[in-house]
Amino acid sequence: MAEWENKVRKAVPYTPGEQPKEKEITKLNTNENPYPPSPAVKEALEELNYRDMRLYPAPDAAELVSAIAAEYKVKPESVFVGVGSDDVLSVAFQTFFNSDKPVLFPEITYSFYDVWADIYKIPYEAIPLNNDLTIDPEDYTLENGGIVIANPNAPTGIFMGMDAIESIVKANPGSVVIIDEAYIDFGGESCLPLIKKYDNLLVVQTFSKSRSLAGMRIGFAMGNAALIKYMNDVKFSVNSYTMSRAAIAVGAAVVKDSEYYKGTCAKIIKTREHAKNALTRLGFEFPDSKANFIFAKHSTVEAKKLFEELKKRKIYVRYWDKPIIRDYLRITVGTSTDMQKLTDALTDILK
Amino acid sequence: MAEWENKVRKAVPYTPGEQPKEKEITKLNTNENPYPPSPAVKEALEELNYRDMRLYPAPDAAELVSAIAAEYKVKPESVFVGVGSDDVLSVAFQTFFNSDKPVLFPEITYSFYDVWADIYKIPYEAIPLNNDLTIDPEDYTLENGGIVIANPNAPTGIFMGMDAIESIVKANPGSVVIIDEAYIDFGGESCLPLIKKYDNLLVVQTFSKSRSLAGMRIGFAMGNAALIKYMNDVKFSVNSYTMSRAAIAVGAAVVKDSEYYKGTCAKIIKTREHAKNALTRLGFEFPDSKANFIFAKHSTVEAKKLFEELKKRKIYVRYWDKPIIRDYLRITVGTSTDMQKLTDALTDILK
Repeated sequence: MAEWENKVRKAVPYTPGEQPKEKEITKLNTNENPYPPSPAVKEALEELNYRDMRLYPAPDAAELVSAIAAEYKVKPESVFVGVGSDDVLSVAFQTFFNSDKPVLFPEITYSFYDVWADIYKIPYEAIPLNNDLTIDPEDYTLENGGIVIANPNAPTGIFMGMDAIESIVKANPGSVVIIDEAYIDFGGESCLPLIKKYDNLLVVQTFSKSRSLAGMRIGFAMGNAALIKYMNDVKFSVNSYTMSRAAIAVGAAVVKDSEYYKGTCAKIIKTREHAKNALTRLGFEFPDSKANFIFAKHSTVEAKKLFEELKKRKIYVRYWDKPIIRDYLRITVGTSTDMQKLTDALTDILK
Repeated sequence: MAEWENKVRKAVPYTPGEQPKEKEITKLNTNENPYPPSPAVKEALEELNYRDMRLYPAPDAAELVSAIAAEYKVKPESVFVGVGSDDVLSVAFQTFFNSDKPVLFPEITYSFYDVWADIYKIPYEAIPLNNDLTIDPEDYTLENGGIVIANPNAPTGIFMGMDAIESIVKANPGSVVIIDEAYIDFGGESCLPLIKKYDNLLVVQTFSKSRSLAGMRIGFAMGNAALIKYMNDVKFSVNSYTMSRAAIAVGAAVVKDSEYYKGTCAKIIKTREHAKNALTRLGFEFPDSKANFIFAKHSTVEAKKLFEELKKRKIYVRYWDKPIIRDYLRITVGTSTDMQKLTDALTDILK
């Protein structure tokens, strides 16, 4: 080991789902939207003036912030934007989870939460789920340094109603509560209305899932202006210009075409419900997902085996060889053709 | 103050140069390139398939990394890419400056260094410059937790030769030395060849200045593979996908057209030398800049007054009301027309 390596921070990074380079695969492993984004994206890209790229973008990304504010009927001062919701959440962790008390989040949830806690040296306590994989709001009344909950939760897909969220936010006036609504548009109901009532609630969403814009890297948070100001102070201590001119223009265009994404979400919900029936017939069990994925366990065959057999057939789903969840596959809801391929392959594997 | 605010990290952010929304101004305040980027950017934007935006970008940004590696004749494992060099430098600070010894950097330098040190709780010591604003390499032999030097330095524009850099890197085998070469293409000489000899040297560059791509947010670092691996581990602990599909495609295209940017840099250098003569005739003094800006002090008139008078005439330059440098204006080198406007305005103000 070189001498300078003593001063290096050795991080254990998050491992994202595989991004295979092959084209001819059925990719149901990273919860991408099977439909292209709104045609407004095409127009916005075409309208970009390449000559303007010599200039920095607006550091406040005002065009995008205003578009989001108008769409969600909040003030621009209540909106924070970042390079995907991972960037937004990471800034929120850095900003709000700054005490010696443990931050609370479910034991089974988005697997970046403990990675951020580690990198920012935030103490945390992972709270077990109920046996049916649901979250018990009562568990989030312990003394804490902050709370983060994905709703619907990942990778279970289970949605928690607004009353339950409100009970958590209300019980914790001394902490910021982050609700990560990456998958909210697939049948859940956003707790956004609560930000007017509770100044300690931050709602985080993304353009990567329901708006089919994972490739552009846009996420956002909404909360009272004081929360957003604190986040911007941290953001401007790291990088003044995180949002490119392309991201700002494309993001603003897509947020103005809500009809389009609501249509594709409706299609995905329909396909999901159909897929649930097909999977049940094949011997799978799963919690009732309100997200664009299904977290499914087969009654007799090991998830690992199914994962590998599907991969041989060029169908990629997500599998974690970890306690509690190693019996499950997380299957992204694709088009109905994708799901037919999946159920055909599973029928073949299970026969 | 709300109860949750006790747990908030209160950051004092970096203040970037103004980005006025008016179009009819002469913008010489943020060191942007006055020329548009290579026409390859136009093509790359046109070739983006908006439908693919539903998919995440490649987390390793391999297309961009390979293009940079080919251009600079290093291995892809020696290249790290980020959202502008601010992102790259911020990750490098987090990764390499992880001891209780102070990180060293010049007292007058890029004003983000102390902001990153504060946000990441890194102890630091700002080393005074020589009276002529040059850096003394001998000052960087103190015991330290790491070193960062901008070369050419900002906002002085003074370039330090490769021998001086090598003496610093060689004297500090126990620390990572970061050389921030944001402005290297305007007449300096990169210390990149030294990375083959020293495993503790990280060279950081950006597409924002010489390649006219500030609006796209692309920066990169080059160093031995172990350094780059450590940075990627930290990066993947914060955000798996920082580089959008647009940034990857545009970045890869622009790096392949080196002839273009070398041409615009040559024009800027010519304009800079001409502007130096004009400023001298107007009573200014300045260190010999090898960057795309001139750090100039007038013999009789206060910098603050000149800054304000120029602003009234819609010419924006950069001014800091801070010790040591409050007598100076940092003037970005624009087109020869921009510089003529500047010298005409200064002539008027000084008459």
